[in-house]
Amino acid sequence: MTDVAAFSFDKLVIFGVGLIGGSLARALRERGDVGGARRVVGVGRSAESTERALELGVIDANASLTDDAALRDALKDADVVLLAAPVAQTQPLLERIAPFLDPSTIVTDAGSTKSDVVAAARAALGERIGQFVPGHPIAGRESSGVDAALPDLYVNRNVALCALPENPPAAVERVAAMWRATGASVHAMSAEQHDRVFASVSHLPHVLSFALVEQILNSSDAALKFSFAAGGFRDFTRIAASSPEMWRDVCVANRAALLDEIDSYTAVLARLRSAIEAGDGKALEAVFARSRAARSEWQERAVTSQKAQQPSPERSATDDASK
Amino acid sequence: MTDVAAFSFDKLVIFGVGLIGGSLARALRERGDVGGARRVVGVGRSAESTERALELGVIDANASLTDDAALRDALKDADVVLLAAPVAQTQPLLERIAPFLDPSTIVTDAGSTKSDVVAAARAALGERIGQFVPGHPIAGRESSGVDAALPDLYVNRNVALCALPENPPAAVERVAAMWRATGASVHAMSAEQHDRVFASVSHLPHVLSFALVEQILNSSDAALKFSFAAGGFRDFTRIAASSPEMWRDVCVANRAALLDEIDSYTAVLARLRSAIEAGDGKALEAVFARSRAARSEWQERAVTSQKAQQPSPERSATDDASK
Repeated sequence: MTDVAAFSFDKLVIFGVGLIGGSLARALRERGDVGGARRVVGVGRSAESTERALELGVIDANASLTDDAALRDALKDADVVLLAAPVAQTQPLLERIAPFLDPSTIVTDAGSTKSDVVAAARAALGERIGQFVPGHPIAGRESSGVDAALPDLYVNRNVALCALPENPPAAVERVAAMWRATGASVHAMSAEQHDRVFASVSHLPHVLSFALVEQILNSSDAALKFSFAAGGFRDFTRIAASSPEMWRDVCVANRAALLDEIDSYTAVLARLRSAIEAGDGKALEAVFARSRAARSEWQERAVTSQKAQQPSPERSATDDASK
Repeated sequence: MTDVAAFSFDKLVIFGVGLIGGSLARALRERGDVGGARRVVGVGRSAESTERALELGVIDANASLTDDAALRDALKDADVVLLAAPVAQTQPLLERIAPFLDPSTIVTDAGSTKSDVVAAARAALGERIGQFVPGHPIAGRESSGVDAALPDLYVNRNVALCALPENPPAAVERVAAMWRATGASVHAMSAEQHDRVFASVSHLPHVLSFALVEQILNSSDAALKFSFAAGGFRDFTRIAASSPEMWRDVCVANRAALLDEIDSYTAVLARLRSAIEAGDGKALEAVFARSRAARSEWQERAVTSQKAQQPSPERSATDDASK
């Protein structure tokens, strides 16, 4: 994709003005190098749910999803629509939006899984699927909601765009330009590739972490084990404190890729088990040394990339962790 | 065990004056409420290896393991001997010490595995095994070596003592009193129980963390995956940056318990896999919610226990993590 510095539009409509949607609105309006959002409309289940965003000046107007006239008005002449609601709501949301959608409006999303979102969008939009450009900004904070939204949340973060064959290149480029204007890097990949990557580096580790705590809970001496658990346990299981509902949905939504990752992980673990059983210290050390080197190299790059961005003590060091 | 506030002795001999041995020496000498170490002798592979400890005033005298006369002199009239060297050195060390050991000297250790240490001690000491009281202080820092030794390293930390049937109760109580004098809590358990607990809360998570990085390295799109790895990956794999040599040794030394834990973990993972494959959101959410609640409760207790201790900004938040 070509490098486009600015992104301008007359009307952006955000469904779900929380951390993710609110930060996009703030980034586009408050960052100096941005062509700027002329008008941002927030839509929620009720008008009340977007009042706070209005109060904070994150959006210019709000509308209720259940009010036909308000929804029609919100979507009229919209340049871009962002869905920033839980992925399971993609299909009902798009079905609700479809009758009021201008043919020139581009719809994109911020969901953490993509194959299921694409299927939902195809079901809801049918022949108009070309209007939907699937996306996933890899950013977050420990706190959520519009009060946690930051104008620099996306600076130096990655955004995955999973363009569909039906998308006009100009529509994909428009969404890419929007994310680049927030300070993010945009990466093109297929929905399948996206889901495989996140199954590997995010969804699988969450399942593995939950599984360790579950295993200890199931053992007869759980209390003793917890009482001796220390720093290694703490780091390894930090992600087991994540939302059970969200992770239930992610596991089901990204089922196919996650099952592949679990199978491949189980095979790696079985190989390590064999080496341990055989007392094969050489094989174990080789794997551990290779892993350590790769992990250290990754950490180096992550630190370098962090340093490159504006310091923001307010922003959590944890990013998409939870997705 | 009864609560004993003070511990006094005339001579403590430490084999391996690094972080663990050095911190014991400093704790016993510098903490106000301690009866106090009259004389601490450090023994290393050479006299030079303990020079730094002498310079820092952590020990009063040093000796070389390879010098018969110096070793005999070091061990003469010793009250307590602490082995704070890698566990694989337990047997050769005890074989080297045995000829010079007074019948009244108590020997203990700080190794992170216990069944293998007990077997090594039995092989080296034979009928004198009653003199050896196996132990494991659960403490550490990211930095190692005697320069990292701290007088309060053990404050509010746990020490596992795995008394043998042959140990006179007074010998076990003496070692317990020594650790309590450093500010630690002492917990009695069998070597088998110890190894099961640490296989579960420490050794297994390390293997699982190394395995995840190995799995990504083995995949065709490793670079892409690493480039999208974020906070969840970072926390989960922090322990994969641990020493490959040390973890090779721990895996082999604690093989039996670790294999059991791997098998039981694989079974939990297989159950989660089935729930994911079946799209059984209810089952997944139940496991995730139970895990999160237990993890949060553990964290609460850990924070409370941290708050109870003297603030020490110098000390790393990571404790025995690495063992």
